[in-house]
Amino acid sequence: MAFQRETEALGQVSGRLGWDQETMMPRGAAEQRSEEMAAMETVLHARRTDPRVGEWLAAIDGAALDAAGQAQLRLIRRSYERAVKVPARLSVELARVTSRSQGIWAQARADGDFAAFAPTLAEVVSLKREEGAALAAEGDVYDAMLQDYEPGATADQLDAMFGALRPRLVALREAVLAQEKPAALTGEFDDAVQMKLTRKIAETFGYDMTRGRVDKAVHPFSSGSGQDVRITTRTNPADPFNCIYSTIHEVGHGSYEQNIDAAYLLTPLGNGVSMGVHESQSRIYENQLGRSHAFTSFLFGEMKQAFGEMNLADAEAFYRAVNRVDGGFIRTESDEVQYNLHILLRYDLERALIGRSLEVADLEAAWNERFEKDFGYAVDKPSNGVLQDVHWSLGLFGYFPTYTLGNVYAGCLHEALRADVPDLDARLAEGDTSPATTWLREKLQVFGGLREPRATIEHATGAAPSEEPLLAYLEAKFGDIYGL
Amino acid sequence: MAFQRETEALGQVSGRLGWDQETMMPRGAAEQRSEEMAAMETVLHARRTDPRVGEWLAAIDGAALDAAGQAQLRLIRRSYERAVKVPARLSVELARVTSRSQGIWAQARADGDFAAFAPTLAEVVSLKREEGAALAAEGDVYDAMLQDYEPGATADQLDAMFGALRPRLVALREAVLAQEKPAALTGEFDDAVQMKLTRKIAETFGYDMTRGRVDKAVHPFSSGSGQDVRITTRTNPADPFNCIYSTIHEVGHGSYEQNIDAAYLLTPLGNGVSMGVHESQSRIYENQLGRSHAFTSFLFGEMKQAFGEMNLADAEAFYRAVNRVDGGFIRTESDEVQYNLHILLRYDLERALIGRSLEVADLEAAWNERFEKDFGYAVDKPSNGVLQDVHWSLGLFGYFPTYTLGNVYAGCLHEALRADVPDLDARLAEGDTSPATTWLREKLQVFGGLREPRATIEHATGAAPSEEPLLAYLEAKFGDIYGL
Repeated sequence: MAFQRETEALGQVSGRLGWDQETMMPRGAAEQRSEEMAAMETVLHARRTDPRVGEWLAAIDGAALDAAGQAQLRLIRRSYERAVKVPARLSVELARVTSRSQGIWAQARADGDFAAFAPTLAEVVSLKREEGAALAAEGDVYDAMLQDYEPGATADQLDAMFGALRPRLVALREAVLAQEKPAALTGEFDDAVQMKLTRKIAETFGYDMTRGRVDKAVHPFSSGSGQDVRITTRTNPADPFNCIYSTIHEVGHGSYEQNIDAAYLLTPLGNGVSMGVHESQSRIYENQLGRSHAFTSFLFGEMKQAFGEMNLADAEAFYRAVNRVDGGFIRTESDEVQYNLHILLRYDLERALIGRSLEVADLEAAWNERFEKDFGYAVDKPSNGVLQDVHWSLGLFGYFPTYTLGNVYAGCLHEALRADVPDLDARLAEGDTSPATTWLREKLQVFGGLREPRATIEHATGAAPSEEPLLAYLEAKFGDIYGL
Repeated sequence: MAFQRETEALGQVSGRLGWDQETMMPRGAAEQRSEEMAAMETVLHARRTDPRVGEWLAAIDGAALDAAGQAQLRLIRRSYERAVKVPARLSVELARVTSRSQGIWAQARADGDFAAFAPTLAEVVSLKREEGAALAAEGDVYDAMLQDYEPGATADQLDAMFGALRPRLVALREAVLAQEKPAALTGEFDDAVQMKLTRKIAETFGYDMTRGRVDKAVHPFSSGSGQDVRITTRTNPADPFNCIYSTIHEVGHGSYEQNIDAAYLLTPLGNGVSMGVHESQSRIYENQLGRSHAFTSFLFGEMKQAFGEMNLADAEAFYRAVNRVDGGFIRTESDEVQYNLHILLRYDLERALIGRSLEVADLEAAWNERFEKDFGYAVDKPSNGVLQDVHWSLGLFGYFPTYTLGNVYAGCLHEALRADVPDLDARLAEGDTSPATTWLREKLQVFGGLREPRATIEHATGAAPSEEPLLAYLEAKFGDIYGL
């Protein structure tokens, strides 16, 4: 219906405003912008809970629809039912508290003072528990929260999957860090040259610049769907890999949005189906493809052309530098081996918070204890520990596990891709990603929101998702690099 | 009321989307963007005609409000009454036809074929006549249209003003063009250096970069109010004056918006009061200040520093080159002497079209006849004549005269400014525009929509607007340059 299409279009406008805020907005415009964003949110919320949508949902005969129509109906119904379940008072209160708490979190992080953030976080947790209870009705509160990011996922499923990951990742991490570290890339890399190269690499991975653009922002992100999908990256003169791999990651997200069937434009099917499936795309582009032996040999040549000789003598040394595993505390700076351990920690803590078996007052101690258990050394300061991520300050509970779910899905897709495309490495070594990106587009991206997240992966791989391919891939790759 | 404030904020969002379209949007996103813009328009139209606004207007006691409150009430009432007067069917039809006609106009201009555009323009004119009749009730249709751009203006007033301008402008033009032309600026001027210089000049004129930004676009424009006011300019390697004076012009528009009292932010008073008053700001910045003898002597130094030596030996030759009057056909490339003759022509023709004393079929002939009468030579092709401007294809009837009204207002403001600030030229020659921009801010810009347009000028100058100061200024300035 036209009303729904307009709502989707307004959602795109709101997203574009978010992009603008991080890339183009003059710094003195923050206050006005927050009113503009709030006004858009008011309009969108009113439309999502508009009684006409309820009447339309009550009147429509789902059985008469084709598969795409039924999928749209499912998504519209889910969004409507979610929106009307939460009392308006609670939504307003959550918006108010989370918009304030982000600033308090940022200040507490800068001051290294968890106690300064704890009362605000406790307020957020309390409101989210209340919201979760409203959404869950009789069911599990955390499961209800997961639906906002990964429809169909359950904590039981995640527990089983993450439980299998954790011991093998801890073991792999210990084995890798016991070995001698490969040389890192060093030197000074001009920002403008990095941006030029990164745009070229974005196109190498199939990102369509006629329907997108690449700008700089403090945090890399992808924004928008359909014909206008923009990504950002960042530059650090000492670390060009940050720029390039942030770009490839965001190109995974952006390509997913760009490659959805054009017939789904501005319908509920015209967006990536879930956070987990989205992350599977960004991670397979970034890691299984971008950090592969084959592709890094191509990238080595591109880097030499852009920057001249580096301290890394050959493609082999370059590959090992790209995949260097080091200690550290920060999730976003983490490598493939350790990344999911960061997520598993957060998942267990946030489940406990929502399930009331942990309170905010005890969160920092719980974080530090768990970190030392899995990583083998102690957190040195709160900004390297419990204060490092913005998510909880924004009330994003149920979001973290989708990162690891995405990595697991990427492992499954990678296994199926290799089986279908035997000459993948030969092509990647020439800088030709098209066998991989075409496979992903045709098997997964084009369908957008047509199937539920898990069914989307199953359709692409022909099998139920499992953590085994990811573990096998990581153990083989890093076993090889580190001679385990 | 909060509802009104949200509507203003949504209007700002819509404006930002327009800016994005001209500066940042990927070229493949046009179709989706037009749906996004249409969705915003639907939301805005629904809010402008929302019965709650009507009820609020009926219930409110205007007498109990302060001056700002009464002004807001006046503007909200005007907007509401305008919106509900036009039948929804007609608004939709106008939106449909004008969105299509812009493309047809652009093609016809490229092909030099007015006949290809005429049927579509006739449709637009017919719909605008109908809309004008709905707005005018018993009054004059063209007067009703003027209210969209210049509330309070009447065709009778404009006739008197323009009637006094025309003979003296024609005479001045003839006298100037009979003289030997001063040397023009020649050479190649690097685009990036032009942009760097133009941003510096923008700040010289008081444009606040913390609440704005300067980008390139095909057509220069200013966009947004309050804390987020963005301007665009363009570069041509052969003509740096185009970049610099486009920027100064837009800085006039942008500074007006930036300098409105912060208390009026996101209220109906928080925007420039009319097109004519807006244009008075852009034109006084661009011409009376930017093209003055004093300021060009400063600019000459800046240009030499940016580009090295030029073909113009000294500040005197530079001043004459900046103010060079040449023949030509195109309004937007016109100088101070001829510009208003282009407008007067359009004003008379569009009044005749709306008043049914001229039909579209005869428009091209009428244009060509009038042009030869005022300019002394014949139009050589339609793209240099009746097809040169986009306005009519968009249904903007009543817009053109505000350009000349703005120039007239700029003349009045300039006269009053000179009387109040005796050392203006000495300061401009040092690149210090602050006596002028402070005067304009305090006398006019800060008030936003508080007073009606004409009263806004009267408050600033202490006198009723008249064309005499503009004419006296032009005759003196160009008489001096051309030794008349």
